[in-house]
Amino acid sequence: MTTATLELTALTAAATRAAKAAAAASDADRAGWLHAVADALDANVTELVAIADSETRLGTARLTGEVARTTGQLRLFATVITEGSYLEAVIDHADPSAMPPKPDLRRLLKPIGPVAVFSASNFPFAFSVAGGDTASALAVGCSVIVKAHSGHLRLSERTAEIVTEALAAAGAPEGLFALISGREAGTALVQDPAIKAVGFTGSIPGGRALFDLAVSRPEPIPFYGELGSLNPVVITAEALQARTGELAAGLAGSFTLGAGQFCTKPGLVFIPAGTGFAAELAEAAKGKGAAPMLTERIADAYPDGLRSVASLPDVTIVSGTADQDATRDGAAPVVFSTSAANVLETPEKLLEECFGPTTLLIEYADQEELSAVLALVPGSLTATVHAQPGEDVSGLVEQLAGLAGRVLFDGWPTGVAVNWAQQHGGPYPATTSLFTSVGATAVRRFQRPVAYQDAPESVLHPALREANPLGIPRRVDGVLVLP
Amino acid sequence: MTTATLELTALTAAATRAAKAAAAASDADRAGWLHAVADALDANVTELVAIADSETRLGTARLTGEVARTTGQLRLFATVITEGSYLEAVIDHADPSAMPPKPDLRRLLKPIGPVAVFSASNFPFAFSVAGGDTASALAVGCSVIVKAHSGHLRLSERTAEIVTEALAAAGAPEGLFALISGREAGTALVQDPAIKAVGFTGSIPGGRALFDLAVSRPEPIPFYGELGSLNPVVITAEALQARTGELAAGLAGSFTLGAGQFCTKPGLVFIPAGTGFAAELAEAAKGKGAAPMLTERIADAYPDGLRSVASLPDVTIVSGTADQDATRDGAAPVVFSTSAANVLETPEKLLEECFGPTTLLIEYADQEELSAVLALVPGSLTATVHAQPGEDVSGLVEQLAGLAGRVLFDGWPTGVAVNWAQQHGGPYPATTSLFTSVGATAVRRFQRPVAYQDAPESVLHPALREANPLGIPRRVDGVLVLP
Repeated sequence: MTTATLELTALTAAATRAAKAAAAASDADRAGWLHAVADALDANVTELVAIADSETRLGTARLTGEVARTTGQLRLFATVITEGSYLEAVIDHADPSAMPPKPDLRRLLKPIGPVAVFSASNFPFAFSVAGGDTASALAVGCSVIVKAHSGHLRLSERTAEIVTEALAAAGAPEGLFALISGREAGTALVQDPAIKAVGFTGSIPGGRALFDLAVSRPEPIPFYGELGSLNPVVITAEALQARTGELAAGLAGSFTLGAGQFCTKPGLVFIPAGTGFAAELAEAAKGKGAAPMLTERIADAYPDGLRSVASLPDVTIVSGTADQDATRDGAAPVVFSTSAANVLETPEKLLEECFGPTTLLIEYADQEELSAVLALVPGSLTATVHAQPGEDVSGLVEQLAGLAGRVLFDGWPTGVAVNWAQQHGGPYPATTSLFTSVGATAVRRFQRPVAYQDAPESVLHPALREANPLGIPRRVDGVLVLP
Repeated sequence: MTTATLELTALTAAATRAAKAAAAASDADRAGWLHAVADALDANVTELVAIADSETRLGTARLTGEVARTTGQLRLFATVITEGSYLEAVIDHADPSAMPPKPDLRRLLKPIGPVAVFSASNFPFAFSVAGGDTASALAVGCSVIVKAHSGHLRLSERTAEIVTEALAAAGAPEGLFALISGREAGTALVQDPAIKAVGFTGSIPGGRALFDLAVSRPEPIPFYGELGSLNPVVITAEALQARTGELAAGLAGSFTLGAGQFCTKPGLVFIPAGTGFAAELAEAAKGKGAAPMLTERIADAYPDGLRSVASLPDVTIVSGTADQDATRDGAAPVVFSTSAANVLETPEKLLEECFGPTTLLIEYADQEELSAVLALVPGSLTATVHAQPGEDVSGLVEQLAGLAGRVLFDGWPTGVAVNWAQQHGGPYPATTSLFTSVGATAVRRFQRPVAYQDAPESVLHPALREANPLGIPRRVDGVLVLP
């Protein structure tokens, strides 16, 4: 074995031991670990933001906000496990008179084991070392090995130090959390038999390659990947007429936010044909200057993507120029426009995500044409409707709900609230699973059900003991019972 | 396109249309469809059992019981959707004062779309045309295309006729249910873009081949496969001493039930070394004669499996003979015995499932050796402990819960209750998912979450409307609220 392989084997062995200890720990203990990590990150916010800014150029204000979002997320998961529904405790008492007789059966969700987390470039805190995947896996009693993103390596290492120290001080088992870096190490991690699930946020090609590895293992494991999303926005004629300026300003703000490097960036905007909206948007986009990109690679890919769209027939540039040599220092916004008929003719390149501050207006002639193009849009994280009160958009909403995990009304998709109802995930390639990676139910990705039949109380998890010592919601003989 | 391809395309197109209609139907409507199917099957039980018995030779009593189990299952899913928790309705009200302001967000689970179901050989009703996969998919609003098992083709066709007629009479949309047959058609079905998930019960090689197809599609889809299981049983020294005869009789009954063609058949039985249990079991197994096998293929594979085990070093035959030419008419029970040390040396063939009336006793010297062998046992549907009251088996139970989805105490795994707490699934290769294929929560396999942000009441599913018109349990602002 190479040194790298030996190191990884030592890490996964420690992660396996730690996962056993974490699974045996109480919810209160694990909630304490999450709070300790959150507190430690908050205490070091100034230093962390400075490192992050030097590596990502996302700016102090945005990064400070992202730390708060990240620590809020850790604390939300502490609340989630304390509440207890996440265990999905179910008790069916024995029924000896049934035909055939029914045994006593008690079911709950247990942690799946060591989890690999691949962090994202664009959220160096919230979708990175101590981000949502890590927090939700730790919350339910899994250990975590994070593959650092090369775009913010120093930040990853410093964050990992703080997390490791905080966990140790809070009494968490050794090996519960570790950081690795490098593409080869990441590939080996996904294939390591000790790893029982993978969380990933990144590109379609990178994500699909790891997905393919995860499912082709001798023992396939779940791969929770968030890969790519076009986030279609539909504006009705009535809405456009009523609030053109507001919509143009909102859209300009949303597609350029973070230099368009959000997984929820509105990449396709459907507008009625023959309006002056493109000009309004061009005006609104003027105020948005060039902004720094996250990595050299992303900065290089952006102009390639622009030129690919610009070279297509019947595509107009509404604002900006496709002929730019974006560097890490400055990628300028570009708005394209085309017709729905044109997308129907050559959908491939027009319905491809371009990471950066660009969006494509698609003019539709009528509802039928709109619906025909929407039917070609790949699975997305979000879909948005701008309509006027009283308009019947139920058919449109039904279609959008079929292609996205979150359907928004009269807003912009770039904000993702961290709460109980959030769904950050959608049909492939938005994600590769039927779960969310943001919000309370993200924990379900790292749990597996186990039922105990006719078990003595002494071996049962407290959640399944008759007296409900944890005081959590449970389903008993088919009836949901609150504590 | 070939005729077969054209036929499949027509079926999946109809299934797509029907899935839209079913998703829009009310829970009460869909519950009505399930009841109609259950009632129709019950009404035709005599005819169905006669066809089933002629094809499977499982006997009238067993098959009549299985019809009751199947119709009970359909009615349980009607109860599940009527109760409403399956929608996982969550409402987070807007919080404009939060930083950043939080929108109104409402989440529920929606049906995933058309589902392919591959039926099993060994349960011609309960895991077949109108079995658990079909029932749970229909319950939540999916359409279903079943691939018939070649072992009971006439029964599949007749069952499908009854199901189709019952659904039509109950007002279900056309195309909601269809049956296909043939290996090529099944392969094409898994690859058809209209299909959004697959349910499968069968062998490891067959299931893995279809799993590989499902995950290598341009749009990968979830494959819920139940593939193979050894179902280890551990008997402690105290239990063996206290009730040898009872354990031998129970085990003999369990491993020969249905000629050992149960996915939950106890295939490995761990006993303390140096007891007289093997002789007791041989005595108990004497009463179990040769029994018919389900198909020619299974009958052919059984003696091959027996000879493979018998040829291994340090394996003893306790009862029966490995040198039998099993035919569909009669496969005779065989009990093997070996030492834990031997399994540690050559685990591969000893830890391989052999479908049919055979089991392997494994004598362990101490807890350490027992634990070492258990660490090599592949993922299983069940694991069983026989211990005496007061014995500390917590470490053993923890290990068994790590390798199986259901842990039984002082019973036998071959019965699978259909209720809210059931877990029929386990680590690979027992299943390929984190869900159950039996019991109430089986529905979650065919649902995907969608969140609605700042949506007007008029476009919301009734489950998410403020007044809770369906009267179902929901989580509101983080708090679980009963109707």
